[in-house]
Amino acid sequence: MTIDYNDRIIKAIDSTVERLSLPQSYELVYHKPQLNEEMLSIKSIEEIMAIVQEILFPGYFGNTSIKPHSMRFHMGVNVDRLLKLLMIQIKRGYCFDCTSDECESCETCKIDTEEVSLAFIESLPEIREKLSKDVKAMYMYDPASRGYGEIIFAYPGIKALTYHRVAHRLHQLQIPIIPRIISEMAHSATGIDIHPGAQIGESFVIDHGTGVVIGETCIIGNNVRIYQGVTLGARSFKLDSEGNPMRGLPRHPIVEDDVVIYSGATILGRVTIGKGSVVGGNVWITQDLPPYSKVVQGRPREMLYEFGGGI
Amino acid sequence: MTIDYNDRIIKAIDSTVERLSLPQSYELVYHKPQLNEEMLSIKSIEEIMAIVQEILFPGYFGNTSIKPHSMRFHMGVNVDRLLKLLMIQIKRGYCFDCTSDECESCETCKIDTEEVSLAFIESLPEIREKLSKDVKAMYMYDPASRGYGEIIFAYPGIKALTYHRVAHRLHQLQIPIIPRIISEMAHSATGIDIHPGAQIGESFVIDHGTGVVIGETCIIGNNVRIYQGVTLGARSFKLDSEGNPMRGLPRHPIVEDDVVIYSGATILGRVTIGKGSVVGGNVWITQDLPPYSKVVQGRPREMLYEFGGGI
Amino acid sequence: MTIDYNDRIIKAIDSTVERLSLPQSYELVYHKPQLNEEMLSIKSIEEIMAIVQEILFPGYFGNTSIKPHSMRFHMGVNVDRLLKLLMIQIKRGYCFDCTSDECESCETCKIDTEEVSLAFIESLPEIREKLSKDVKAMYMYDPASRGYGEIIFAYPGIKALTYHRVAHRLHQLQIPIIPRIISEMAHSATGIDIHPGAQIGESFVIDHGTGVVIGETCIIGNNVRIYQGVTLGARSFKLDSEGNPMRGLPRHPIVEDDVVIYSGATILGRVTIGKGSVVGGNVWITQDLPPYSKVVQGRPREMLYEFGGGI
Amino acid sequence: MTIDYNDRIIKAIDSTVERLSLPQSYELVYHKPQLNEEMLSIKSIEEIMAIVQEILFPGYFGNTSIKPHSMRFHMGVNVDRLLKLLMIQIKRGYCFDCTSDECESCETCKIDTEEVSLAFIESLPEIREKLSKDVKAMYMYDPASRGYGEIIFAYPGIKALTYHRVAHRLHQLQIPIIPRIISEMAHSATGIDIHPGAQIGESFVIDHGTGVVIGETCIIGNNVRIYQGVTLGARSFKLDSEGNPMRGLPRHPIVEDDVVIYSGATILGRVTIGKGSVVGGNVWITQDLPPYSKVVQGRPREMLYEFGGGI
Amino acid sequence: MTIDYNDRIIKAIDSTVERLSLPQSYELVYHKPQLNEEMLSIKSIEEIMAIVQEILFPGYFGNTSIKPHSMRFHMGVNVDRLLKLLMIQIKRGYCFDCTSDECESCETCKIDTEEVSLAFIESLPEIREKLSKDVKAMYMYDPASRGYGEIIFAYPGIKALTYHRVAHRLHQLQIPIIPRIISEMAHSATGIDIHPGAQIGESFVIDHGTGVVIGETCIIGNNVRIYQGVTLGARSFKLDSEGNPMRGLPRHPIVEDDVVIYSGATILGRVTIGKGSVVGGNVWITQDLPPYSKVVQGRPREMLYEFGGGI
Amino acid sequence: MTIDYNDRIIKAIDSTVERLSLPQSYELVYHKPQLNEEMLSIKSIEEIMAIVQEILFPGYFGNTSIKPHSMRFHMGVNVDRLLKLLMIQIKRGYCFDCTSDECESCETCKIDTEEVSLAFIESLPEIREKLSKDVKAMYMYDPASRGYGEIIFAYPGIKALTYHRVAHRLHQLQIPIIPRIISEMAHSATGIDIHPGAQIGESFVIDHGTGVVIGETCIIGNNVRIYQGVTLGARSFKLDSEGNPMRGLPRHPIVEDDVVIYSGATILGRVTIGKGSVVGGNVWITQDLPPYSKVVQGRPREMLYEFGGGI
Repeated sequence: MTIDYNDRIIKAIDSTVERLSLPQSYELVYHKPQLNEEMLSIKSIEEIMAIVQEILFPGYFGNTSIKPHSMRFHMGVNVDRLLKLLMIQIKRGYCFDCTSDECESCETCKIDTEEVSLAFIESLPEIREKLSKDVKAMYMYDPASRGYGEIIFAYPGIKALTYHRVAHRLHQLQIPIIPRIISEMAHSATGIDIHPGAQIGESFVIDHGTGVVIGETCIIGNNVRIYQGVTLGARSFKLDSEGNPMRGLPRHPIVEDDVVIYSGATILGRVTIGKGSVVGGNVWITQDLPPYSKVVQGRPREMLYEFGGGI
Repeated sequence: MTIDYNDRIIKAIDSTVERLSLPQSYELVYHKPQLNEEMLSIKSIEEIMAIVQEILFPGYFGNTSIKPHSMRFHMGVNVDRLLKLLMIQIKRGYCFDCTSDECESCETCKIDTEEVSLAFIESLPEIREKLSKDVKAMYMYDPASRGYGEIIFAYPGIKALTYHRVAHRLHQLQIPIIPRIISEMAHSATGIDIHPGAQIGESFVIDHGTGVVIGETCIIGNNVRIYQGVTLGARSFKLDSEGNPMRGLPRHPIVEDDVVIYSGATILGRVTIGKGSVVGGNVWITQDLPPYSKVVQGRPREMLYEFGGGI
Repeated sequence: MTIDYNDRIIKAIDSTVERLSLPQSYELVYHKPQLNEEMLSIKSIEEIMAIVQEILFPGYFGNTSIKPHSMRFHMGVNVDRLLKLLMIQIKRGYCFDCTSDECESCETCKIDTEEVSLAFIESLPEIREKLSKDVKAMYMYDPASRGYGEIIFAYPGIKALTYHRVAHRLHQLQIPIIPRIISEMAHSATGIDIHPGAQIGESFVIDHGTGVVIGETCIIGNNVRIYQGVTLGARSFKLDSEGNPMRGLPRHPIVEDDVVIYSGATILGRVTIGKGSVVGGNVWITQDLPPYSKVVQGRPREMLYEFGGGI
Repeated sequence: MTIDYNDRIIKAIDSTVERLSLPQSYELVYHKPQLNEEMLSIKSIEEIMAIVQEILFPGYFGNTSIKPHSMRFHMGVNVDRLLKLLMIQIKRGYCFDCTSDECESCETCKIDTEEVSLAFIESLPEIREKLSKDVKAMYMYDPASRGYGEIIFAYPGIKALTYHRVAHRLHQLQIPIIPRIISEMAHSATGIDIHPGAQIGESFVIDHGTGVVIGETCIIGNNVRIYQGVTLGARSFKLDSEGNPMRGLPRHPIVEDDVVIYSGATILGRVTIGKGSVVGGNVWITQDLPPYSKVVQGRPREMLYEFGGGI
Repeated sequence: MTIDYNDRIIKAIDSTVERLSLPQSYELVYHKPQLNEEMLSIKSIEEIMAIVQEILFPGYFGNTSIKPHSMRFHMGVNVDRLLKLLMIQIKRGYCFDCTSDECESCETCKIDTEEVSLAFIESLPEIREKLSKDVKAMYMYDPASRGYGEIIFAYPGIKALTYHRVAHRLHQLQIPIIPRIISEMAHSATGIDIHPGAQIGESFVIDHGTGVVIGETCIIGNNVRIYQGVTLGARSFKLDSEGNPMRGLPRHPIVEDDVVIYSGATILGRVTIGKGSVVGGNVWITQDLPPYSKVVQGRPREMLYEFGGGI
Repeated sequence: MTIDYNDRIIKAIDSTVERLSLPQSYELVYHKPQLNEEMLSIKSIEEIMAIVQEILFPGYFGNTSIKPHSMRFHMGVNVDRLLKLLMIQIKRGYCFDCTSDECESCETCKIDTEEVSLAFIESLPEIREKLSKDVKAMYMYDPASRGYGEIIFAYPGIKALTYHRVAHRLHQLQIPIIPRIISEMAHSATGIDIHPGAQIGESFVIDHGTGVVIGETCIIGNNVRIYQGVTLGARSFKLDSEGNPMRGLPRHPIVEDDVVIYSGATILGRVTIGKGSVVGGNVWITQDLPPYSKVVQGRPREMLYEFGGGI
């Protein structure tokens, strides 16, 4: 590969570098280090999630030779390491958002970091308990599944829920941005996009899951099942006096216990899908459904034109 | 980062470790090593698939400097290495599922492992032949494509089919769990979720593909084309006398030769889509279609309300 | 793991290797090195995209300790390295497609490589400017978002657009295959599949995005918003006299300024969605919509059958 | 890089491959897998030594955040993991040497592997105790040292001794080849070459150490100090009736307590250096020294010729 | 690999873990984190040295495509990154040694860290200047060398001197332990062991170098050449009133300008080797040599015994 | 870690960068890319040596599961890959040295690269044959060795000789710098420093080896044994009319067949050590020795002073 670094090239490089270095070019898209705290590390958050999975599902992930008699050693080391990594990233998370000019002298972050990290650690047993119920439910409702192990080891639904239940707990603890990073990791790996704010009950089943979207203020009951391509979204949002969207208002569906929603269905707005309802595939719903409703798409019609090819 | 390991922290860690180490906490979600055989290795299965792709598409993946005169050397080394890695993982796959208490003295696994590994190796030429036809068909039906090379190197459809045709062969050989892991790898990378059990004919085309779901008992003919978001799923499943779903029963569609199914269509249950039919986008079908049918969605209507924002 | 390499195994390996090494077996799926130029490197293209992101969004990716006073150093090194890596891959890209038998003596590639690499580098400031507007728009229309930083660091929409705006520029410069590889990287990570040829205006919003497909000849105006599962595809394509699809013809929708398209909508063919229109979820459209249209799916109906289970 | 794979090249490759594949070419230098047991893994033995160091010197190597209250967790996990890795390599070590044709049916290796692995694990506390004394002695006798921590973390002498005390224990347990691999690792890193068979007392000091050689049958007392370039070697060895050297016979020096040997001294054969002796630098000794001897090199003389340059 | 985790094994593990976790077992060899500052990172110090080499010898190490017109960009980024990494490790270095119980509230470390890091950065041009002279001298005195490039890229002597001149500067700035780690890295890679405290003049030549030892208080003039195996060591050291060696006292040789010392020579104690002297190989010297001395080993004698074998 | 990037720091960085970027600062130590050919890659040369070892000692290094029936496949792939990597580095090696201003139009390098690469490949069988004899000899003369496998897998002597015999062949083919890089790799790993130009006969034994130096113009016969710390060096070199050392002249010893040289001996200049001689440890020799000589060091004397401590 021959590059003749003649004047043409040198000029092109120099003028491009010059333009890219103008403050007006980068101001909106530049992250200025707050007091030189490092930027959040995606790699470290991935390691955090790997340790969490190793704790929640011993023997499946990470060190897979755990024996009952060595369970405590492994739990101890993993909890220890998790706490340490978490505190570093949470501290950075606060900095990511921080607008204070004298952050360093402020003790708030330090205290918060320790408190919320511990609070998260302490909720791991409950998270495991919930996920156990999710695994059971997924096995119950998937005739293609051959056992709990297959679901834990190879199902995108349980991966997405594991990430969500962790992200939701961090969201409850008001930790900035990290919950969103975790939910986006699950989204990228599984195609399932659950906002950390969504409240999801017990024994939740997502099958296949690609394209599922569950919005920030959703409330989902127990024993709910949804399939790929289901959207539980917002229909509209309100603007504040400055024309910005008002953030945090309830704007996503409430799905009561024992509801099933088939693939491709779209439910928008703060509507309630009543207990025990069944929503058919590809349906578009923007109003409340009373309990035990069953709705399907209008009947398809014959085609009026010729298809001639691909997309 | 300062952690003051005071009593509060030590107590929190210790009690959490204690709770996580209780057998009743972990029993459902713990994988106990069977006779100390290692757990299945995702990394090794990824390597297996990388070698398979290097064998099937020489010059595109892995060592890309293969010359015709050195083709046999490269095939020889890759087949040799593939056989070795495969036997290790297949053995672990049997252990993953095994419930025997005296597995070690049992010779069955050992014999099976060797036989099925060889049987898989021997079917590689046929798998390559089928994929060659798929590549041709994808080129034929995608006006955006510039050549076979682009399809092999950069199309998610051919990646998903490569993984499926491999996983399906392993599924035929009744190897536990590994086929599902392979199909899930393709699902995560492409958004295309094909159960290893699905039977797919020649010259199959998936374009774009995100959100495609093809169920375990699907039977798909030759020259079939499907687009992103198409579901070929089950409508219902039967329960056995203990209330568990009956596994393995035919419950997914049969799609005959020369069918085209457009994006977002959902076809559920053991229905037959007759030869040469065209199914329009976003349609929901739960009944048989006679040959050469053409169906589209009911006409959309005017909107009755105001949209005001995002989802 | 015991392998008894008896005659059975040796024969199986040898005959499989033999069959895989027959020219008629591999001819369609083999990439023969053109003049021994190396194959395109996916890993290197990933590094190229990592550097591009580091240039466009300083402080968020890669080296995250960039201070204003060291901005020029970092821009200089990154532009320098980017130019070098790009020239190597672009040269390989030309070879990938090349059918010349005397490529080496041909000076065309060498000149093109230098010219188009420089032209790409010089457009980085404009790409950054466009992405700044996209970030602003995404923040404006997502009430769940907490700031620009969150969008840049964690939103799949901005990732997909970053990759697209880069791939589109390379596509304009008529660089073979590399733009498609870049768009497929974004597709795999986000589920958003935008063909590098698609023309997209300013302040474009994709929310969630899984399953979005935007075809090669799409033209999208300013201030357009689309949601997950939206297809802007082709309805049909024409065949040439030899029965191959005619490539490059306009066959995808034109979406004018200020249009919103909700999740799961499918718009096919060279139709025009008029300025300010709103397209509801799961709708299937194959005809022009006049400006300020609002369309939604036909009303769902009651269900006529019992659901009994999963998919 | 252009390679014109003309006939000349193809012939050269093919004939070279042919010659390299002749059994008479490779027979002496080929390791044939014994029953398909994998070859010893240098990488795994390096990991074993890393874990051993982490166990022996907590807080210095590996996970460096060990707190007293989490010490047991870390010791537990490390001992658990060490045992597992060790058993795999020890099994392979037996195979490396094994000449049995029916090894698989032979239970000996399996039992040995478990027994010796456990025996090694159980001696870790004693090894740590000895190394503590070595650290103390090295600090005592090196005026350049600033503390125990510096010696543990940065001194080649303590690294070589750590590896030796581990290798020696494995040698005592009659584990084949692995002790030699470990001693060679230390040799490569430090230039200090101690045969695993050498018996070394307490509070041993090696300073700098490059070029030190301590032979297989050496016996070294307590409180001995040696410097760089010291050889404790064999002067001669006996041949057996077939002309092969007789292996295992005592042929290296005995160094009694409180001896100091300065840099470059060479002591050969089964001689005894009496308690409290001092051996000066560059001296060549092949006879016993009585206790409290002090010997130095003969006085240098004036030079008789001109030096004109380098080596 | 079968491990039957019977009682025997469980007991062995548990009792070993117990013994290893006793404070009296680990107290001497345990590094307790000071205020949770991380331990020094060998990996990071390796990266620091890699950046230093990239700065000092542009185009040879690291990014090797540096053009004159992009020199400033590369220097800028490397100095920026070096400063950051250095400050982190220097802070940890202070903690490594710190015995304060209230370190965190103490501002001393913070100020020192910044000052000494900057001071080091500012001396890089002088270090480069000195090394340029060393390269020239090594070329001048090695007839086997083919050019400066070969010396910079492949000679252990220049590597050892690069590390030494850096470590010596850090030693001057009184940074704890890091200089020793750097000198030990060079020792391990080259077999040349120079204490960071040693003062070395201009145009210093070390050829081959394995086994060279240069002690802490050595003072070496300009244009000195030494060969492999040369020791410039201490003959004795004094004890303080508590029986510990007195640290920091001058106890190593002074070597004046234009001296040559051949391989294996040992010079011990605070002696002066006068300007222009030549010391022959394997000589042992413990007294001053006047300027222009030439000394060689006493003449060898005939052998009095039979050699029969190896060592 | 807090860095307050005040003016002091910014100024220090900027002025240092400025000084480091001055041409007069970097001219001597800067490698300017010749026609943009990449710099030699140490990593790639390490890979080359790994492949060479895998070819020479099948089953010991790299892929360790080679069976006789798959030997040709593995040899074929390794030779193929070796040829490719070698050609790239050899081309860069010529560029490293090249002073031509119009190198690109010059066909010489291209032809040389291909020819010498092939010539090297073709000599691999001879290199293996020689090393087989070295292994045998090392086993014969080391009573501590337990078999050929141990020597191949774990002895520094055979590693150094493998590297030397390869480097020497490349040196014969007049390839610039790469042979020196290879010899330095062996030197760093083993402490054995053999110049690629040295001619070494059959059945050569180096035991332990740390500190061994064998100069460029040495000629060593068959069945020679040397021990650690032996120097075969130059006593002086001649200067040319410009004051530079004359390069390439014979200036190192000739060692005839069946000679043994014990540890620490130094032999300097173009002297001949006659067939069958034995040279004792730590001896300094600068004159010819007739055949069957036996020389040892002068007898040591009593010490005249007190030792009081360490070095």
